[in-house]
Amino acid sequence: MMRTRPLKVALLGCGVVGSEVTRIMTTQSHDLAERIGAPVELAGIAVRRPNRVRAGVPTELLTTDATALVKRGDLDVVIEVIGGIEPVRTLITTAFEHGASVVSANKALLAADGASLHAKAVEHGVDLYYEAAVAGAIPLIRPLRESLAGDKVNRVLGIVNGTTNFILDKMDSTGAGYSEALDEATALGYAEADPTADVEGFDAAAKAAILAGIAFHTRVTIDDVHREGLTEVTAADIASARKMGCTVKLLAICERAADGRSVTARVHPAMIPLTHPLASVREAYNAVFVEAEAAGRLMFYGPGAGGAPTASAVLGDLVVACRNKLAGTTGAGESAYTRLPVSPMGDVVTRYHISLDVADKPGVLAQVATVFAEHDVSIDTVRQQGKDGEASLVVVTHRALDAALSATVSSLRKLDTVRGVASIMRVEGE
Amino acid sequence: MMRTRPLKVALLGCGVVGSEVTRIMTTQSHDLAERIGAPVELAGIAVRRPNRVRAGVPTELLTTDATALVKRGDLDVVIEVIGGIEPVRTLITTAFEHGASVVSANKALLAADGASLHAKAVEHGVDLYYEAAVAGAIPLIRPLRESLAGDKVNRVLGIVNGTTNFILDKMDSTGAGYSEALDEATALGYAEADPTADVEGFDAAAKAAILAGIAFHTRVTIDDVHREGLTEVTAADIASARKMGCTVKLLAICERAADGRSVTARVHPAMIPLTHPLASVREAYNAVFVEAEAAGRLMFYGPGAGGAPTASAVLGDLVVACRNKLAGTTGAGESAYTRLPVSPMGDVVTRYHISLDVADKPGVLAQVATVFAEHDVSIDTVRQQGKDGEASLVVVTHRALDAALSATVSSLRKLDTVRGVASIMRVEGE
Repeated sequence: MMRTRPLKVALLGCGVVGSEVTRIMTTQSHDLAERIGAPVELAGIAVRRPNRVRAGVPTELLTTDATALVKRGDLDVVIEVIGGIEPVRTLITTAFEHGASVVSANKALLAADGASLHAKAVEHGVDLYYEAAVAGAIPLIRPLRESLAGDKVNRVLGIVNGTTNFILDKMDSTGAGYSEALDEATALGYAEADPTADVEGFDAAAKAAILAGIAFHTRVTIDDVHREGLTEVTAADIASARKMGCTVKLLAICERAADGRSVTARVHPAMIPLTHPLASVREAYNAVFVEAEAAGRLMFYGPGAGGAPTASAVLGDLVVACRNKLAGTTGAGESAYTRLPVSPMGDVVTRYHISLDVADKPGVLAQVATVFAEHDVSIDTVRQQGKDGEASLVVVTHRALDAALSATVSSLRKLDTVRGVASIMRVEGE
Repeated sequence: MMRTRPLKVALLGCGVVGSEVTRIMTTQSHDLAERIGAPVELAGIAVRRPNRVRAGVPTELLTTDATALVKRGDLDVVIEVIGGIEPVRTLITTAFEHGASVVSANKALLAADGASLHAKAVEHGVDLYYEAAVAGAIPLIRPLRESLAGDKVNRVLGIVNGTTNFILDKMDSTGAGYSEALDEATALGYAEADPTADVEGFDAAAKAAILAGIAFHTRVTIDDVHREGLTEVTAADIASARKMGCTVKLLAICERAADGRSVTARVHPAMIPLTHPLASVREAYNAVFVEAEAAGRLMFYGPGAGGAPTASAVLGDLVVACRNKLAGTTGAGESAYTRLPVSPMGDVVTRYHISLDVADKPGVLAQVATVFAEHDVSIDTVRQQGKDGEASLVVVTHRALDAALSATVSSLRKLDTVRGVASIMRVEGE
């Protein structure tokens, strides 16, 4: 039996994602109504530039006054696809105060201040959903929060930024350098004019913070996430990875410490074996591994960005938020009961691939090996190559604390016989 | 704030999955309570053989009277991991009548009679969840039902039976024949003593019915699913697939017809290109591709069976069912509003790989090609091999209706020059 009063939805922002959300809400209104149990009506769309042409977007719904829109008081759900911290935080809070649930695609805001938004939602008895904030259309937030709610997640490891994966994939498949690959990504629309948020890892770090918080039932903000971008990855690094049977990916890694008393979250380039399923994630696709105690290893794969995939995630959340409104209930809120602290990068256990330029004379390897031993770092393999009085040493370590590995590198730099550290990269996914 | 009255849960069945559910409920009761918002208490476990030793299962909870257990009247949730149609259907219905939500791992029952169970659950205002019924721990039911609720799924294509994937993987990697690979699967515990349900495709067909119903918001039972097992797949078929750059997988395929007016669901062995992500799913793993209009292509991968993974899925559902009980609400029920009919196999559009033993004389290819043309089936490639008066023709078609392809094969069998049809296999995943 279908209720006759339609649910009212407002949209904040009408760029690529917002236009797609509008298009689907308009063309598939019958399906949405059947799945929700009541029709949904787009009550207003807040935009900055109302005169911009947006195909299929009803102009009579446009307004530049987002604040007045969220204050209407008759809204059931507000969809936020503007992005950034302010004025969005205030708009979402205002929407809550006026009784609307919120569906957001805003990773930056969620990663910066998710806890206070969740608290506000609970205070006002409404929902806050944000499946679209991480890995586009790939269902990840809901599976972690609900399907795995009876399990213990120990690790989340994934490629969550399509731009950087496209760049690294190009470097790997064509031998191109970073700048050249970035240029191609920009030309094809995979990278923005200012690619900083992607290539410096800010985007992936925000997603890592969100995933870690949900996976470990604790609070993690972007400031807790160790972050290294890929601007220093060279064609030589990629070639070096190939020699080891690896490829280089920008990974987001969230882990529970072995003693279970803390968690870590980090984003950095890493070598992973070509046999690892993440190694075959090409172009701008995303994929996330989840390791849980009972479930084992799960992988979720799909398009990580783009108007339509992001709209799909937004609309899935919209349907659930609307169903909850109809039932007079809310879904599961934030669950941060474990209060596990986030440890610094030094506490992470990982492996290093270190490439050193050294003097080509006897005793160098012994000197280098001594430095590793002094820091309690065990060496897995060493490859030595000499040419014209110069030589290079490529050392791959066993697993050790990042702090010890990092201290080892500092000590190596001080050796007279070490002319330079050509590259350092972590090795993951084994 | 934690409620003090615990939620009461009964368990029906205590085999591999039930024991694991009990173990996790006992050892992780604190986590479950925090995630639910109230403690959960195991109120009783119905088993057939109470004297069997079950490590970690409290014997005082065991009972042989499942009916009395579900009639207690104070249960919040009943977990059913017995399997099969009766007495389980009656037990689940009785549990509903006494106010309990049900979490089930029972694919056979859901695929046979899901609609009436859903109706009963709605009638009594309780939930029916069954994430564990399809692909073990891989979150698939909830993502399809909620995360993709605002999207239009056009295709579900997957490996949903671990036993048969193990057998095919062995045949592919070792060149073993079917019987030999089955023996290994049995020895390693991947196949049951009576492997019929797996190797004849019944298990996969039940899962296909469940997936198709949810994906297309219609009703599909196992009887609607076209089913072919893998007992007739030979080492020669696998070798033939290799020559084409393919491997053989037992696939469950659910599709919306091109005109959108019907759906199809089928399970059969098929060749898929080695470059397709499903080709690299090894051993007993499961993986499912979902193609949706806005989301694009998503893949879900993980262990498809086993005590712990299945328990993970059961407990995820338990947490959600308990949360709903606490909130005095229910989750989204069955959504079969599209009422799309299920078309027969003949309406499916696919490609055939046909291997013919033919007389090695001039004009045979022309005869064979004429038969294809008469059925409006277009040929993609033909490979001809002759030896000692005998020859073989391997034909790969373009996409055509299965009915036309099947009729073509019947006509080919009638040709004097065709001595036999050595193998027929569909080609998918392109």
